Amino acid sequence: MNNYRQRNGEIWAFENAPKQELQAALAHDHCENADGYDGVVLGLDGGTTSTVCVCMPFLPFSKTLPDPLPVLARAIAGCSNHNSIGESSARDTLEDIIAEVLSKSGSNRSAVRAVCLGISGVNHPNDQERVLSWLRKIFPAHVKLYVQNDAVAALASGTMGRLHGCVLIAGTGCISYGIAEDGKEARASGVGPILGDWGSGYGIAAQALTAVIRAHDGRGPQTMLTDKILKALDLSSPDEVIGWTYADPSWARIAALVPEVVFCAEASDQVANKILLKAVQELALSVKAVVQKLGLCGEDGNGSFPVVMVGGVLKANKSWDIGKEVVKCIQEYFPGAYPVRPQVEPAVGAALLACNFLMKESKENNHS
Amino acid sequence: MNNYRQRNGEIWAFENAPKQELQAALAHDHCENADGYDGVVLGLDGGTTSTVCVCMPFLPFSKTLPDPLPVLARAIAGCSNHNSIGESSARDTLEDIIAEVLSKSGSNRSAVRAVCLGISGVNHPNDQERVLSWLRKIFPAHVKLYVQNDAVAALASGTMGRLHGCVLIAGTGCISYGIAEDGKEARASGVGPILGDWGSGYGIAAQALTAVIRAHDGRGPQTMLTDKILKALDLSSPDEVIGWTYADPSWARIAALVPEVVFCAEASDQVANKILLKAVQELALSVKAVVQKLGLCGEDGNGSFPVVMVGGVLKANKSWDIGKEVVKCIQEYFPGAYPVRPQVEPAVGAALLACNFLMKESKENNHS
Repeated sequence: MNNYRQRNGEIWAFENAPKQELQAALAHDHCENADGYDGVVLGLDGGTTSTVCVCMPFLPFSKTLPDPLPVLARAIAGCSNHNSIGESSARDTLEDIIAEVLSKSGSNRSAVRAVCLGISGVNHPNDQERVLSWLRKIFPAHVKLYVQNDAVAALASGTMGRLHGCVLIAGTGCISYGIAEDGKEARASGVGPILGDWGSGYGIAAQALTAVIRAHDGRGPQTMLTDKILKALDLSSPDEVIGWTYADPSWARIAALVPEVVFCAEASDQVANKILLKAVQELALSVKAVVQKLGLCGEDGNGSFPVVMVGGVLKANKSWDIGKEVVKCIQEYFPGAYPVRPQVEPAVGAALLACNFLMKESKENNHS
Repeated sequence: MNNYRQRNGEIWAFENAPKQELQAALAHDHCENADGYDGVVLGLDGGTTSTVCVCMPFLPFSKTLPDPLPVLARAIAGCSNHNSIGESSARDTLEDIIAEVLSKSGSNRSAVRAVCLGISGVNHPNDQERVLSWLRKIFPAHVKLYVQNDAVAALASGTMGRLHGCVLIAGTGCISYGIAEDGKEARASGVGPILGDWGSGYGIAAQALTAVIRAHDGRGPQTMLTDKILKALDLSSPDEVIGWTYADPSWARIAALVPEVVFCAEASDQVANKILLKAVQELALSVKAVVQKLGLCGEDGNGSFPVVMVGGVLKANKSWDIGKEVVKCIQEYFPGAYPVRPQVEPAVGAALLACNFLMKESKENNHS
């Protein structure tokens, strides 16, 4: 990425080079439209830790999707959440990664038909409009541009670009997002540690640290978590946990202790077990709130809908499987809910969304 | 305070002026030792928000304390917690306020017999030693110096300088601290928001904000807290609470919402009521842990001991009185616990401690 920035203003120089590579790549991937080359789409997943961008050939949504999906190029960069790094850095990150992925794919901006960005921190129309204004300066006017919250890209990675159902993300933070057939959207959680995202990795680990302190000062039961966490942090006494906790405000650093909690729960530690059970209930409750708001379960409550499961907390563990317990809990409310574990990454979900949006728009234009 | 710093190095210049003022002040206060002038003591309460220092005549602890206590001078400064503002600023704050209070009292450093500092952030022998080394550079060798956590000064403000019993502080943060007749100490809570000080003002308010969000996104019951808090913060929707919460990391800003929670609980809002009940249990549990560790309640559990109650959260409210409920809860565990609401400020408690420590040392020296 630095190379692009250093070449200051020349990040688009590659566009003057010959274009054979793209044709070769499309042909190599046995893409349906390799012969009738119909342009590319870009999908981007922008998180607080990293940003991923992929370039794919435009896939008409009416046809069956090829398997595996033809990803022409992929690029990775750092944070693109403007709340974390400021607007100008976020814009640079986005422009750099877009140039990189287009260069890698042997394509260029005039070949792009649509771009879909799923970015964390995009919550309000103002956020969307700001990112759109950056993109308009990069792309020719004919390129369709879509800017969404990163939860939308995560949902699409499980539904292969279709916008229907619910996604539950539980990593360092957690959020539940859903969209109904009529386009109505809803979300729950995703409000950070102060406002009680107790099902998140941060929430689970913070409760474990709290349990260590409570056991130490006589307010709570003794727990295996004490030894396990002290060892993981290379500390010699629970007193030192206080200093460690406040030495660095990074949420991810605390969330990294989730495996210790799972380990203790698997070893039948009651305190750890209780923390995980509470997290499961919190996560299921977030999904329940979204499903009820949107009526995803139908009028009789038995309707079928996907719940896309994303993030480290929901990944299968040896025996204490948080994701599996969350699904069980959700299905008690809604028997028709079925879990989907995405086979593609969120950036590919965003690219599929770009195809979907583009198809919808051309259909609407044809009908009007 | 800035005047002292600007005169750079000259903050002790006042010591060259004549000393009649001190004698006059001592006489005016009808202090027992006004005729046989026996020097002064300094007491300091150093918090994260502000620091208070008082100068008092030395009061022999064997005699009955005069009522009201003769405070010769009082000075206020900003934060003196080295964790918050760094070591060199903390040292400057302490030296400035000590010079100011001595100058105001018409006294000087050679008249000082003992200094007792209760400072937040002083948790380990290392912290104590650092502050002591600063003080040793300020005072002549004969001055006795004592450095404690600010909870010790708060306890002494309720016990008039005696070190026995338990103190519960609940303001923005909360902590319980106790000391037994044999000098054994214990503490509970006082670990900040990440580690779950749910009985603190911050904890109460953060749970109220969480309840507003949960009601809004469908995860919790509707509550009066929504209207009350939105109005207090001048926000128009619960969505805006997220931005408000993370816009400023100050704990005190969030804790300032406690009166809204009390208001709603008094108006029978069940969500607010539940938050306050939980806070009461948490605070009582902190005291219980300390009392049990130290055996303050005696072997039969019915022994008499003071619980000094300090901080905005424990102050009497109209009808929902958190402090009163905490006392009720503590007395269910320990019938001999009796609440003490300090009549003097913690800085005066620290000054009384200085007298107490000094008396003990001279007694020990006389016996040896």
